[in-house]
Amino acid sequence: MRLNQRAHNQLRPVEIIRHYTKHAEGSVLIKFGDTHVLCTASIDEKVPSFLKGQSQGWITAEYGMLPRSTGSRMDREAARGKQSGRTQEIQRLIGRSLRAIIDLKKLGERTIQIDCDVIQADGGTRTASITGAYVAVHDAIKHLMDKKLISESPLIDYVAAISVGLHEGNPLLDLDYSEDSSCDTDMNIVMTGSGGFVEIQGTAEGAPFSREMMDQMSDLAAQGIKELIQLQKNVLK
Amino acid sequence: MRLNQRAHNQLRPVEIIRHYTKHAEGSVLIKFGDTHVLCTASIDEKVPSFLKGQSQGWITAEYGMLPRSTGSRMDREAARGKQSGRTQEIQRLIGRSLRAIIDLKKLGERTIQIDCDVIQADGGTRTASITGAYVAVHDAIKHLMDKKLISESPLIDYVAAISVGLHEGNPLLDLDYSEDSSCDTDMNIVMTGSGGFVEIQGTAEGAPFSREMMDQMSDLAAQGIKELIQLQKNVLK
Amino acid sequence: MRLNQRAHNQLRPVEIIRHYTKHAEGSVLIKFGDTHVLCTASIDEKVPSFLKGQSQGWITAEYGMLPRSTGSRMDREAARGKQSGRTQEIQRLIGRSLRAIIDLKKLGERTIQIDCDVIQADGGTRTASITGAYVAVHDAIKHLMDKKLISESPLIDYVAAISVGLHEGNPLLDLDYSEDSSCDTDMNIVMTGSGGFVEIQGTAEGAPFSREMMDQMSDLAAQGIKELIQLQKNVLK
Amino acid sequence: MRLNQRAHNQLRPVEIIRHYTKHAEGSVLIKFGDTHVLCTASIDEKVPSFLKGQSQGWITAEYGMLPRSTGSRMDREAARGKQSGRTQEIQRLIGRSLRAIIDLKKLGERTIQIDCDVIQADGGTRTASITGAYVAVHDAIKHLMDKKLISESPLIDYVAAISVGLHEGNPLLDLDYSEDSSCDTDMNIVMTGSGGFVEIQGTAEGAPFSREMMDQMSDLAAQGIKELIQLQKNVLK
Amino acid sequence: MRLNQRAHNQLRPVEIIRHYTKHAEGSVLIKFGDTHVLCTASIDEKVPSFLKGQSQGWITAEYGMLPRSTGSRMDREAARGKQSGRTQEIQRLIGRSLRAIIDLKKLGERTIQIDCDVIQADGGTRTASITGAYVAVHDAIKHLMDKKLISESPLIDYVAAISVGLHEGNPLLDLDYSEDSSCDTDMNIVMTGSGGFVEIQGTAEGAPFSREMMDQMSDLAAQGIKELIQLQKNVLK
Amino acid sequence: MRLNQRAHNQLRPVEIIRHYTKHAEGSVLIKFGDTHVLCTASIDEKVPSFLKGQSQGWITAEYGMLPRSTGSRMDREAARGKQSGRTQEIQRLIGRSLRAIIDLKKLGERTIQIDCDVIQADGGTRTASITGAYVAVHDAIKHLMDKKLISESPLIDYVAAISVGLHEGNPLLDLDYSEDSSCDTDMNIVMTGSGGFVEIQGTAEGAPFSREMMDQMSDLAAQGIKELIQLQKNVLK
Repeated sequence: MRLNQRAHNQLRPVEIIRHYTKHAEGSVLIKFGDTHVLCTASIDEKVPSFLKGQSQGWITAEYGMLPRSTGSRMDREAARGKQSGRTQEIQRLIGRSLRAIIDLKKLGERTIQIDCDVIQADGGTRTASITGAYVAVHDAIKHLMDKKLISESPLIDYVAAISVGLHEGNPLLDLDYSEDSSCDTDMNIVMTGSGGFVEIQGTAEGAPFSREMMDQMSDLAAQGIKELIQLQKNVLK
Repeated sequence: MRLNQRAHNQLRPVEIIRHYTKHAEGSVLIKFGDTHVLCTASIDEKVPSFLKGQSQGWITAEYGMLPRSTGSRMDREAARGKQSGRTQEIQRLIGRSLRAIIDLKKLGERTIQIDCDVIQADGGTRTASITGAYVAVHDAIKHLMDKKLISESPLIDYVAAISVGLHEGNPLLDLDYSEDSSCDTDMNIVMTGSGGFVEIQGTAEGAPFSREMMDQMSDLAAQGIKELIQLQKNVLK
Repeated sequence: MRLNQRAHNQLRPVEIIRHYTKHAEGSVLIKFGDTHVLCTASIDEKVPSFLKGQSQGWITAEYGMLPRSTGSRMDREAARGKQSGRTQEIQRLIGRSLRAIIDLKKLGERTIQIDCDVIQADGGTRTASITGAYVAVHDAIKHLMDKKLISESPLIDYVAAISVGLHEGNPLLDLDYSEDSSCDTDMNIVMTGSGGFVEIQGTAEGAPFSREMMDQMSDLAAQGIKELIQLQKNVLK
Repeated sequence: MRLNQRAHNQLRPVEIIRHYTKHAEGSVLIKFGDTHVLCTASIDEKVPSFLKGQSQGWITAEYGMLPRSTGSRMDREAARGKQSGRTQEIQRLIGRSLRAIIDLKKLGERTIQIDCDVIQADGGTRTASITGAYVAVHDAIKHLMDKKLISESPLIDYVAAISVGLHEGNPLLDLDYSEDSSCDTDMNIVMTGSGGFVEIQGTAEGAPFSREMMDQMSDLAAQGIKELIQLQKNVLK
Repeated sequence: MRLNQRAHNQLRPVEIIRHYTKHAEGSVLIKFGDTHVLCTASIDEKVPSFLKGQSQGWITAEYGMLPRSTGSRMDREAARGKQSGRTQEIQRLIGRSLRAIIDLKKLGERTIQIDCDVIQADGGTRTASITGAYVAVHDAIKHLMDKKLISESPLIDYVAAISVGLHEGNPLLDLDYSEDSSCDTDMNIVMTGSGGFVEIQGTAEGAPFSREMMDQMSDLAAQGIKELIQLQKNVLK
Repeated sequence: MRLNQRAHNQLRPVEIIRHYTKHAEGSVLIKFGDTHVLCTASIDEKVPSFLKGQSQGWITAEYGMLPRSTGSRMDREAARGKQSGRTQEIQRLIGRSLRAIIDLKKLGERTIQIDCDVIQADGGTRTASITGAYVAVHDAIKHLMDKKLISESPLIDYVAAISVGLHEGNPLLDLDYSEDSSCDTDMNIVMTGSGGFVEIQGTAEGAPFSREMMDQMSDLAAQGIKELIQLQKNVLK
């Protein structure tokens, strides 16, 4: 049985708080249970040099964990002088996921810089980051439209992400930290509101997984993401 | 007139929330108006190498700002690969301030690692950090005593910090960001519960300041710190 | 039609040359068409500090591209002073893939350090790296057994990797660089000799992909990996 | 009793040697007893990017200690690959102190780069640096005026700095290294020729200090700085 | 007696393979016995900023060793985050050697970037690098002339390099790794086709060497370089 | 004609001042004309890890230039975060040169750390560094013998260094900066008191040089080094 009587196909309680801090054009605190991530979206009125003069915008992301967001304190990456491989993988994933549902041409020659900072971690920080970043980006785009800087929304679709895993052969949705640590397989899936896959990343940490298990995990993820996107819609209404 | 009818000797509304995140032995969100800092205190059961075998503990601090805690986004220090001079100055100041009110012998051979992370900035982040870190350190020490790891509290006194400034020749208490930017002099003062000075750092950003002005600013700070320490006492009751 | 009359489900010519350089315990040059990667496996008679005293070994990997392995010269990472996020992602992937088919207990307290260095690149460097690294690791283990340092092989299974993509809605196996650049979806799959999934990483670079397409790509990959593992078996006979 | 019969309010012998090296526009060796600092001021005919096009100049400072300027050899910061927090604090302090007595508009769009390098250290390196840098900056400005690059001196006032401390409850002026190590409080004060405060930085390294002690230390410092500025005037006559 | 019956004045078997990889404008694999170095020359249609607008080109070089090119694995410089002093010395030497035989004016405002990457090391990697880089640069220049980007060859002469050493008082030509390790003196000499010296670098690793020995080593090197240049001429015919 | 009527085979005025700073076991200011280098030798009672337990000592060197030791200000290497290739070449050369005349066994398990810091530069900083470092090392060894830490001097011989160059075909001894910049060939030679070569490093910066010119430069250097060693003997008497 999972913690708090959670069913195998049940998300943790998800909360999405818009306008959480005052400076950013989009600022969202998202909670997947005890995992709390602050997602901000900042408008920068220029593009990286490789896109200059191409009449299109850019979206990029950075990710960090507060040193004591975790059970034992992690080194501060700014003090160590470099970001870990894990950090870089996650921030590249967040950026790709959001770019998948934005028409960069319609954004104009500007950058939306996403920052996902984990205040408290209990598994699933990258999926919470993507799901929350969507709302922050939405609000940053609303800010651009309210200020008449763009006339048409570059948002093409919704996007959200969830983890699934195999625990003693059984698929589980939305792993918390203790489940993640004991699972044989850990998979993160990013999908759009219309049900297309943006990213699928599955890793066998113990035994390899079969095609059948992959199918079951994909089904579970698709259902979870549908619920998350409904929550995004509710909070954006 | 100051924002929100604040008097020249009036603090911004201060809020101190204990047990803000779940993993750290001490975890405090402190608000000085719109400045919000998460202060955690983590116990590490070892000391830095320069203290090994000396039957005493250590307290040290790190400080960071979330990239979009500020009006315009700052570069992420982890991505740039180094902490700025300002960051290092502040984290050294926080460490010294807390060490001033701890008996390191009574702490035993362990380290309390303070992390002050600015969630939202509106001036006075270093003074809020010190004031909040005190409460986080208090809670981490309480954790050690509850677990019978130490029998006697190493806390000697309270400690808090506040900024004062000279605005068109008039002293102001607890500067917000816009005041800080327009002040001629900016002073940060750290004092104990018994009224002793731990640190005084004053900088003339415009014209040099006179001895008389320094005296007025010191008086104002002493009064503000008295109020902050009363708030610490209330929240720790 | 693909370059050189290649069918949609056809691998490029694959060549695996063992004992390519003389110093490494395992040294393999692998060619997937014009992609040439030198994979070495080096024995180090100690383990990383996080594994000390746990009676088990470790396998880890590093990856690099020679600056002019590519069409236009890339900066040398040693000169820039850091490895890119892409490099780190790939070397973490190689390490995880090889650890999946090794019994680290049987390896004993030693490390196998894999180095995959791309001499010439034409797409698929990470999948060639994994496929070649398997043979290099095999040879390094043979060296340990020949020298009677271990009595039982820690190898549990074979492992190989291949890329698949969606090009104008059609699945293609083993993308070369020009195909990779024009595909909507790029997927890298790592599987064992017994047909289990070790890793699946799919990214929609253009439009999101459907569940049906994912299934087709998985089938194509499974068939390609089967062929690669047959080639490994042939060369290791 | 202090070393060499020095009274509590007595400076160490101070020597200021102009034109110490031949290349810099201003080059001064300053000695506070056994503390010897080489201060150079270099003219750079451009400004940092944040000041471009604003018709004003800039003054900035860097600070370093030769590895064996101290009793036991320190690591070379260039070899370690970064400047310590202490180094950064000191060079920021030197820069602010000199900017306080310069009219940056009159300097024109150029930068004066100060370098303070400690040849031999015996306490008070930052105060010697500021006091010597003033003379070096003076000479660099004289060079600009001699070459008719500016017509009016941007120097507004003199500036000098001194340390004071509390040793067993008694205030001492101009601490040498052994005094600095045994003092409860260490204060560095920067003042102008007209008696205004530019910086005050006091730290209780042992017990907190009282307001009365702060007043006594300020008085002592003011007297010491007056003497230093007289020495600057003598050497610049 | 030397390995493989080699005489004291005999080169190891030298092989020079042109067009070894497909992307670079010049790409050469050179073998001095078991030392194998891949030398590429890449054309970059711009010059470093210190040469802008001066109607001349530039040649520069980078050098690296694959981590397991050596008997025991070396750290990867990209992972350590910096190039060693030895690496920097060698790449500066390669650059200077090639610039000595190029008319940079005739090259036009472009850079030839040489990369020498050691695939397998057995002593003499820097001399093999220079000798192979010459052929790669030749081919890159041929590419420029074939594409009519320059009308006249900027090549002034040939250039090659060889090591000599003193082993128990006897001079040896072209040291392999085991000889290099046991020699008292190690000397690297770079000469042109017309017999001029470009570089001479001799180091007494054991006892100092006499003028007479230096003369003998220079003679031996001159003869070896003559043979190498003949090999370059043969391969370029 | 050379500056100050100097003959082609004449050294600049050389001055060697012992005991220049007070903390280092050996501390020497050496002047070759306007080139002034502070050389210190520090005793460290341990050896690098690669020499532990081998009953021998070590000598190593670091080199730096003060930012404004030169005609136009150089970046501070500590601020840039890395030492240049040139710096690393020079400090490796200094270390090798001093190790050539020390019996490391007799030194015992300790390190002599040399620091050569250029106060003012006018060409020949590396040769002045080696020549001055010898005297500093001598004094550090004298300190060890005076304190009875070693009973027999590990010094085997004297060592000094000088530059020679070819200016319009004529050999010149001890180049100053302007000569160095206009010479076709620049050679640095390190020799012992008994006339053996320790290092020879010659570079053709313009036209290659002939064997005959090399011989003439070697002769000139040998004579200059003889004079320098006589000066060392005088100052050490």
